[in-house]
Amino acid sequence: MELRPIGIVHNEVRPPQKMTPFGVPSTVEILPQYEEALLHIEKHSHIWVLAWIDRGERDVLQVIPRSGNELRGVFAVRSPARPNPIGLTSARLLKREGLTLYLDKLDFLDGTVVLDIKPYFPVRDVHFA
Amino acid sequence: MELRPIGIVHNEVRPPQKMTPFGVPSTVEILPQYEEALLHIEKHSHIWVLAWIDRGERDVLQVIPRSGNELRGVFAVRSPARPNPIGLTSARLLKREGLTLYLDKLDFLDGTVVLDIKPYFPVRDVHFA
Repeated sequence: MELRPIGIVHNEVRPPQKMTPFGVPSTVEILPQYEEALLHIEKHSHIWVLAWIDRGERDVLQVIPRSGNELRGVFAVRSPARPNPIGLTSARLLKREGLTLYLDKLDFLDGTVVLDIKPYFPVRDVHFA
Repeated sequence: MELRPIGIVHNEVRPPQKMTPFGVPSTVEILPQYEEALLHIEKHSHIWVLAWIDRGERDVLQVIPRSGNELRGVFAVRSPARPNPIGLTSARLLKREGLTLYLDKLDFLDGTVVLDIKPYFPVRDVHFA
């Protein structure tokens, strides 16, 4: 199960401690060999971005989340620390220009490797408790 | 960027053509070495399941989706065919019993390798066009 980079995140935030919980305006630059995979992406108002959080500690199983003081399992939080450090964030797709996707906000740092782009489907993806 | 299995999907569906678009009742069996990572997972009504879709063709960049007749890039569909065949499905967490998570429905086949479990956060994950 080996992953291939398909793009890269660009924004103004490099040090992790400067990232805000809900992210910052960002672009995703898709690698040229994957241009065909973007066909009709602009029909979607929102997309999912999956990224490889290389600073995520893979051997930590419990953490105290930013917004609490109680220990939780890493499968019960969205922390980058997890056995497979795949980050998952949805964003509004503002526009596409060639290989570049303009997003309203992403909480991935500048230079983060992108693994996948998926369309957001409200019928699949919206839930309320 | 190498992935580690963290669990496995169990349900009644093995041949891909028998899977319904919105999935079937399923369990996810977490591997024993990741039990600690489940702490407090049951506080969440819904979770994300990320899985490795091993039958996904990695070198296909455009497909005609099930629900249409127009060619689309794989980043504009939720097809298993994509450079990194990571499936993303949300489900209601009905209960946890030890290492087993009971889910209302998943569209992954029986035996699929699970890569990650994340809590569903409406404030992050709900969007409407």
